[in-house]
Amino acid sequence: MATLICPEEHSPVTDAEAIRKACKGWGTDEKALISILGHRNASQRKIIRKTYEEMYNEDLVKRLESELSGHFEKAVYRWMLDPQERDAVILHVAIKEKPILDYTSIVELSCIYSPHDFLSVKCAYQARYKRSLEEDLAQHCTGDLRKLLVSVVGIYRYAGDEIDAKLAKSEADVIYNAIKSKEFNHEEIVRIITTRSKTQLRATLNRYKDDYTSSLTKVIRRALTKSGTDEESVTRVIVSRAEKDLEVIKELYYKRNSVSLDHAVSKHTSGDYMDFLLTLLGNKN
Amino acid sequence: MATLICPEEHSPVTDAEAIRKACKGWGTDEKALISILGHRNASQRKIIRKTYEEMYNEDLVKRLESELSGHFEKAVYRWMLDPQERDAVILHVAIKEKPILDYTSIVELSCIYSPHDFLSVKCAYQARYKRSLEEDLAQHCTGDLRKLLVSVVGIYRYAGDEIDAKLAKSEADVIYNAIKSKEFNHEEIVRIITTRSKTQLRATLNRYKDDYTSSLTKVIRRALTKSGTDEESVTRVIVSRAEKDLEVIKELYYKRNSVSLDHAVSKHTSGDYMDFLLTLLGNKN
Repeated sequence: MATLICPEEHSPVTDAEAIRKACKGWGTDEKALISILGHRNASQRKIIRKTYEEMYNEDLVKRLESELSGHFEKAVYRWMLDPQERDAVILHVAIKEKPILDYTSIVELSCIYSPHDFLSVKCAYQARYKRSLEEDLAQHCTGDLRKLLVSVVGIYRYAGDEIDAKLAKSEADVIYNAIKSKEFNHEEIVRIITTRSKTQLRATLNRYKDDYTSSLTKVIRRALTKSGTDEESVTRVIVSRAEKDLEVIKELYYKRNSVSLDHAVSKHTSGDYMDFLLTLLGNKN
Repeated sequence: MATLICPEEHSPVTDAEAIRKACKGWGTDEKALISILGHRNASQRKIIRKTYEEMYNEDLVKRLESELSGHFEKAVYRWMLDPQERDAVILHVAIKEKPILDYTSIVELSCIYSPHDFLSVKCAYQARYKRSLEEDLAQHCTGDLRKLLVSVVGIYRYAGDEIDAKLAKSEADVIYNAIKSKEFNHEEIVRIITTRSKTQLRATLNRYKDDYTSSLTKVIRRALTKSGTDEESVTRVIVSRAEKDLEVIKELYYKRNSVSLDHAVSKHTSGDYMDFLLTLLGNKN
């Protein structure tokens, strides 16, 4: 469930005029921008962008970039792009503009989509950067990480709901044996994780839990160091999911941390950036 | 250019009736079947199949399977399926029904299509077998072959025509150095071959030829043992390409072997199977 609150009807012309006014003269009226753009869904924002360009002969996204700054600018910029284009930008930043490859974003984005929808993101990536996501990714990592990530991103998984119980059993055993001998990079673990359908994989993990009375995710968590949260991750998750399933994420966040996500955001961010995120989280302003 | 000769107009009802007649009673009139089905394109065959089922309440493909036998049956069966479905069947046979994995067919099919069209084949595979092509493939091979094939099949390459000349130079060097040290399975060779766009890869191979005065394909040919031709390959190529580029293949075949493909087919095959292949090769009958 989405958290975004937006009117069923809106006038793109009125919106474009109000945005223009907020950007004009000295300073920018960030509150006005948030009150409009923080309450429009993807197709409404697309129409506003088009209308604005027709009315003022100026690209709205570029104008906003020049008016705003810092994390607020980044968040608004991502919010204004088409969802597929936005995720292509996030993936590109994760691969090419970080000192070390930001694999968290890559895994996250490749997992929240259906194979079909993730393909649209890959097509948006190709249209924008004239290269495939896979080739950029493969070029920017090596060894086990490459083996895992290129397959996670590349393979067009089956999306059906069938479960092969025998297979779940045999592959749970394969994983158990590989982990027992501490081969976390075992070729078969990579194959199972990267190629099986989500439903089948879930069955295998449940089987693992039943047979070996421990959940695989716990084993893996022990094997990985946890990376800290930063503004970029907060922006990514809230902007990408506000129109999708942010309500569910809020619930899970609360269950795990006994603190609401809204509270955490207002504690760790500030100013227009905070106001914008809280708006996308469904707070009225 | 295609070799298939077919009428612009045909009556699906007349075709269905003629096929029914050819299948009825003792024995089958193979000549009649070839004279109809060997001169109908994919969409015409689809309509015939549908019309036949409506008229006689019987699946035409199943009926043909029960009437025919041997290589002729296989060829007709493949010819009657939708192109994507047919190639899904060919891939499935190559992966699961051979004593050893038939990687020639797999590489061939994944290379002749555009990334977009190959995706339709992968979707047809999923619809038919309720699993992804990648997961079946990964399960049926290991090591270097798995690394190479799963990526060749899985990765959605960029299909644009841009060439990065600097990249072509640097990757030609990478390949040269890997080959010099006899590391044909070098991680970087696999990355380059499996992720770069076809245009970029061609630029890299040309650059390799210019800089190292030897073509990479020659080097690789020396590293591989050539496998013999068999009926299955002949069927696959002729059935898959008759509506596509078989004319070009015929020309190339003649240039390489100084014998026409038609002649070779009539020398190495016989009976209805031969007649059917020659029909698809554009011979009138």
